[in-house]
Amino acid sequence: MTLKTLTAASAAQLDKDLMSESMGFSIDQLMELAGLSVASAVYKVHPPSLGTTILLACGPGNNGGDGLVAARHLYHFGYAPRVFYPKPTNQPIFGGLVKQLKALDIPFVDTDGFEAALGEADLVVDALFGFSFKPPVRKPFDTVIQQIIDSKKEVLSVDVPSCWHVEEGPPKQGDLGSQFKPSYLISLTAPKPCVEHFKGQRHFVGGRFLGKKFAEGYGLDVPEYKGVEQIAELQVGARVEKL
Amino acid sequence: MTLKTLTAASAAQLDKDLMSESMGFSIDQLMELAGLSVASAVYKVHPPSLGTTILLACGPGNNGGDGLVAARHLYHFGYAPRVFYPKPTNQPIFGGLVKQLKALDIPFVDTDGFEAALGEADLVVDALFGFSFKPPVRKPFDTVIQQIIDSKKEVLSVDVPSCWHVEEGPPKQGDLGSQFKPSYLISLTAPKPCVEHFKGQRHFVGGRFLGKKFAEGYGLDVPEYKGVEQIAELQVGARVEKL
Repeated sequence: MTLKTLTAASAAQLDKDLMSESMGFSIDQLMELAGLSVASAVYKVHPPSLGTTILLACGPGNNGGDGLVAARHLYHFGYAPRVFYPKPTNQPIFGGLVKQLKALDIPFVDTDGFEAALGEADLVVDALFGFSFKPPVRKPFDTVIQQIIDSKKEVLSVDVPSCWHVEEGPPKQGDLGSQFKPSYLISLTAPKPCVEHFKGQRHFVGGRFLGKKFAEGYGLDVPEYKGVEQIAELQVGARVEKL
Repeated sequence: MTLKTLTAASAAQLDKDLMSESMGFSIDQLMELAGLSVASAVYKVHPPSLGTTILLACGPGNNGGDGLVAARHLYHFGYAPRVFYPKPTNQPIFGGLVKQLKALDIPFVDTDGFEAALGEADLVVDALFGFSFKPPVRKPFDTVIQQIIDSKKEVLSVDVPSCWHVEEGPPKQGDLGSQFKPSYLISLTAPKPCVEHFKGQRHFVGGRFLGKKFAEGYGLDVPEYKGVEQIAELQVGARVEKL
């Protein structure tokens, strides 16, 4: 089995195409489905019976938005999510997502409270940076990454392990984040090349909205989703092909 | 077990509240989740192994939009959906949903082709009218309803069996639609009072986005969804309470 992976540039182009005049998706739709798949992956690796306290660390971009959507679905799945979202984005979709969480009384944790929240978490969802991340890691996320590493908590990363280079993988030994090694990864739409360096336990793909013809235009295969599931499991350690 | 049901006025108010400045949902989000739950109900009552040809009859309002979203998810679930959508609504979300279906090469059927498509369908999804329906049934939907009845095909109705009065139930004996008796019903958010007259095989509820506090504000219970499922099954023939 070979994992076909999308470079940062191809992933950006694919998103742009989905939201183009001809395809007609809105960011609201895509983020809803992506976030739902993230929540489904959490359920798969860590069902509520193993502990319901999920800490979602959300960055300022679309990756963070996926985390905010996931937090809402996790609440409805029976979890007690907590959200860290220190740099809110001033766009309607992000404002709406925050309101939806507040209406459910889902607690928001600030930078000062992050370490304590980490200590209480059963699982951390890393939705800090996605495929458009470019180093360096800015404040307060440098501290946050180190705190997550130091906590030794199990982490599920959304699309790209945060602070990893989308194509090259983890930072070099000694640099911030070189020890950031999530247990679980959910790739959105398709894996990114850095997945070659992912040595965690389980790898999923989500975002069930790619048609065969559209996927083929990017050289991708449509993942083999089962039934009505919003995620499909991929093989950890599979050979990687960069598209 | 008592089914708490929402009158047309309460259902309209609930939707308005979800999309209010304080709750922050967009129509794109709500329709996506509603349509996904419709597709999940189709999978439950008619898995692809029983036949993949699903005809979705979509009306001009939000009920039709839920049908358009469901058609896309059904495609991804392995079905061969066909869509009848004779009165497209001129709003961005509806235009986008149609484009998404066309990009998947999902066939659209016109009024002249509807009867033949019915003959070939394994299941019909009735997404013609929802809780804001007020009689009389306008052209071409009067003919369409009669064609569906005459076809004797199994029907899954979305939210309200089309041409039924939202609160009173089926039209009186002899009137158009008095013989319209769907086998399956998926209520969205909460059942409507007409469910008292539903004598089909299975009844589901979908739209997994109501928090406990919000639901209680309407006197509703949050349905007992399982795992990551987007639908919950309700008892057919349960006593009905109108809120």
